[in-house]
Amino acid sequence: MNIFTRLSPVDLNAICCSSGQFVASTRKLHVGTDGPKSPPAAGAPERLPFSRVTEEDLAFFRKILPGRTITDPDLVESSNVDWLKSMKDFFSPAGSSEVLLRPQKTEEVSQIIRYCNSRNLAVNPQGGNTGLVGGSVPVYDEIILSTSLMNNILSFDSISGILTCQAGCVLENLSLYLEERDYIMPLDLGAKGSCQIGGNVATNAGGLRLLRYGSLHGTVLGLEVVLADGQVLDCLASLRKDNTGYDLKQLFIGSEGTLGVITAVSILCPRKPKSVNVVFLGCETYEQLLKAFQLCRGMLGEILSAFEFLDSECMRLLNTHLKLPNPISDCPFYIVIETSGSDPKHDAEKLHNFLEEAMASSLVSDGTVATEESKIKALWSMRERVTEALTHDGFTYKYDISLPLEQIYQLVIDMRQHLGGRAKSVVGYGHVGDGNLHLNITSSTKDPALLAAIEPFVYEWTASCRGSISAEHGLGLKKRNYIYYSKPSQAVGLMGNIKAMLDPKGILNPYKTLPDDVK
Amino acid sequence: MNIFTRLSPVDLNAICCSSGQFVASTRKLHVGTDGPKSPPAAGAPERLPFSRVTEEDLAFFRKILPGRTITDPDLVESSNVDWLKSMKDFFSPAGSSEVLLRPQKTEEVSQIIRYCNSRNLAVNPQGGNTGLVGGSVPVYDEIILSTSLMNNILSFDSISGILTCQAGCVLENLSLYLEERDYIMPLDLGAKGSCQIGGNVATNAGGLRLLRYGSLHGTVLGLEVVLADGQVLDCLASLRKDNTGYDLKQLFIGSEGTLGVITAVSILCPRKPKSVNVVFLGCETYEQLLKAFQLCRGMLGEILSAFEFLDSECMRLLNTHLKLPNPISDCPFYIVIETSGSDPKHDAEKLHNFLEEAMASSLVSDGTVATEESKIKALWSMRERVTEALTHDGFTYKYDISLPLEQIYQLVIDMRQHLGGRAKSVVGYGHVGDGNLHLNITSSTKDPALLAAIEPFVYEWTASCRGSISAEHGLGLKKRNYIYYSKPSQAVGLMGNIKAMLDPKGILNPYKTLPDDVK
Repeated sequence: MNIFTRLSPVDLNAICCSSGQFVASTRKLHVGTDGPKSPPAAGAPERLPFSRVTEEDLAFFRKILPGRTITDPDLVESSNVDWLKSMKDFFSPAGSSEVLLRPQKTEEVSQIIRYCNSRNLAVNPQGGNTGLVGGSVPVYDEIILSTSLMNNILSFDSISGILTCQAGCVLENLSLYLEERDYIMPLDLGAKGSCQIGGNVATNAGGLRLLRYGSLHGTVLGLEVVLADGQVLDCLASLRKDNTGYDLKQLFIGSEGTLGVITAVSILCPRKPKSVNVVFLGCETYEQLLKAFQLCRGMLGEILSAFEFLDSECMRLLNTHLKLPNPISDCPFYIVIETSGSDPKHDAEKLHNFLEEAMASSLVSDGTVATEESKIKALWSMRERVTEALTHDGFTYKYDISLPLEQIYQLVIDMRQHLGGRAKSVVGYGHVGDGNLHLNITSSTKDPALLAAIEPFVYEWTASCRGSISAEHGLGLKKRNYIYYSKPSQAVGLMGNIKAMLDPKGILNPYKTLPDDVK
Repeated sequence: MNIFTRLSPVDLNAICCSSGQFVASTRKLHVGTDGPKSPPAAGAPERLPFSRVTEEDLAFFRKILPGRTITDPDLVESSNVDWLKSMKDFFSPAGSSEVLLRPQKTEEVSQIIRYCNSRNLAVNPQGGNTGLVGGSVPVYDEIILSTSLMNNILSFDSISGILTCQAGCVLENLSLYLEERDYIMPLDLGAKGSCQIGGNVATNAGGLRLLRYGSLHGTVLGLEVVLADGQVLDCLASLRKDNTGYDLKQLFIGSEGTLGVITAVSILCPRKPKSVNVVFLGCETYEQLLKAFQLCRGMLGEILSAFEFLDSECMRLLNTHLKLPNPISDCPFYIVIETSGSDPKHDAEKLHNFLEEAMASSLVSDGTVATEESKIKALWSMRERVTEALTHDGFTYKYDISLPLEQIYQLVIDMRQHLGGRAKSVVGYGHVGDGNLHLNITSSTKDPALLAAIEPFVYEWTASCRGSISAEHGLGLKKRNYIYYSKPSQAVGLMGNIKAMLDPKGILNPYKTLPDDVK
């Protein structure tokens, strides 16, 4: 089973016929959607005429949430600032809320929201505050409604694998709970230690397991949601199938807290795999990487659980800023493949056969395989810590793009060429198996000229391929006005109608998701 | 590999310690939802004040659809009658449409709907007309808008497996197209030879592969929908991930044509498995069947693609009416397990190990395994032809219930006891792996007294377990007023608001899905 040790680059090179040149994939440009109606506005819109919090309001909140109505500015501050600490760069007075509410029960959320609606007070629902588009922090003085204390598991059915829990449960805690019961969560994110399931659902988080277990639109079976008028909408079914009327819960998945506050979630969990393997491979061209993906889908089949990539620029940043050594020889592209299955021997055999074939057909030029947990973690960190390495490289402009698989890396190449020497680093990595590119561009300091060179170029390029300008991060405050690059204006209009129907005063997470020009 | 031949009942009985008695599973009754607001109305509501089709209307339709505007009563008739031919039993003047329209293009659908909306003419969108709840045929004189001629495949991406096609493509044709390209459809239904993908999506069809590939809410990536005012809503993305605003397409999945007419679908297709096995097993008790399910989820893991069941009453009907012999010895319960995987040797080994363990622990008492296509089909027909056998048994009252797995068969037992000798047959079968029971009750002729004994008993029983009174069939005309057994009135109210927003005149598939008392 020599394949399960580090592959020898010499052996691989011997059978590798790659020229080392990048072979541009055939790039078909589709007709784009109808593009932006007006030039997207920078920063945030004007503060809307919501009421300001008074002493009477605070007295009401304190009555419902004794000891959990936080007004000490030092304590509120961390909830005013986003994880990237970029909101104040984006928009100057961002995050100036003076009230943080920490309910424990749905009924408390309901009372708070009903009151805020009647008083015309804006509310910013907040989970783990790990979002990347400014959706989880207040823009002005919105009341922050944190779900952090709503962290109880409500039920788990060990036959069906259906978990029901409050919205504030931290993803990693749910994973640990389930692993003891021989199950796993159907999603896994780099932010798992902080992010909460309610926020995951509200933002339709994707992550590392989407390739295998699909999106939350399929795995979430039920939601409990507090609507803008304070009503509790009970769609918390624990059934795999239910065709009694419209599937209302779907509306709230990915609506970023603008249509209701998710207070509980019911979700279908897969069995814990008995064997997990991770392979780290090097490819000479993006075309070879794609061919390796096709080969691997055919040969690994049902045990393939992740197919991720990073480019050599990401590797440089990992080496430079985090001192993480490259586990294989230098290559233009790296792939992380994970398998999860029920039979270690079968999985090992499938992986062995795939690697042999991938080498024989010169699709990969070097690689290493991990079966034990510490080495698996080490290999995964090459992919998962790219975001962290970027924060050390400078001010980062982040783009989260969905594209047809063939086009993914062409955007990185075109962006590099387009920017010339203006950027410090232009790197590409992401969930290539799902068609999802994380394009990141760094600069020593915040650089409006650089930004003007990146945008709208990146959005126009994406729209020309009928891609999505936000694959999994959502729109939040930062990307709301770019929605027209991926959605026709008529669809956006319908979204506006849904918002007006469910939240007529617009108190729920204002300035987020929908563009400024929607009615 | 002796396990891959018919298992010997003698060998199995030797290690089987079952007493042959049914051991009632622990039945916990949850608090039900808030139940019906008023006693459900029998039959259909009054005809709503829609316009009646005039000669001018026909002239307009003929201009848009020359040769495809059908008014010959003989030709319209088959579209007026549902597959079960039960609508006229249910409601006397049912299905009296005089116009059948057969558009080929989205633009034609758009023109028709815009015109009907302006004229206040009701429209009944129709796919393959294989629905079981009276959702696909007109209640009064609604214009029938058939998607049958909209049957073009628009694109298929062989790297990502994303198929885009018109709504009228027949499911089986799509399956054949994909199989040639090494892919399969993520859903499979008994009605595959007639049902259309647009109808599948509109009714959120479940079927035999849901256990493995999940619901259409996860696998459908994009939809094109003609709205009630004739606007074409383009959400036909071909991307696995897209978080730019609310996921509007979800609204139309399962809305039974009441919110818009689906004209095109983009769907993620899995790779065609390289090996498929089917096992037909017998169990002495439902408790053992459930234990076999748990064992099989653990041991077959990622290759498990179906776990279906039928009871001995179903077997009796298959024997009697279709002359299908029992492939194994008589048992109270039968399981059909399907595996689909990428490595025939591995799959065979997993199945062998599972069967050995299932026998050793006396969970199954007899069984047979099929690996070749003809025998696989024969075993599947034991499950798939139960519906057909029922039609020969007499007038059939059909219920499609979702329940927690432990409770599924208790409903059949309780119903038998409740009905005493009033019914001819009371049978249970279905997608037990998904928690979905098909409960069917037959009678020599239509029997209102029997119906009164079944309903609301069956709905109250289901509601007491927080089950769904329609797992996959939808509500259509027949079940619309029972929605309150599975949804709180507030959720139904919100559905009514969505309907009013998208179809203010209510011209799209009236009298369906929503209850009569919704505003």
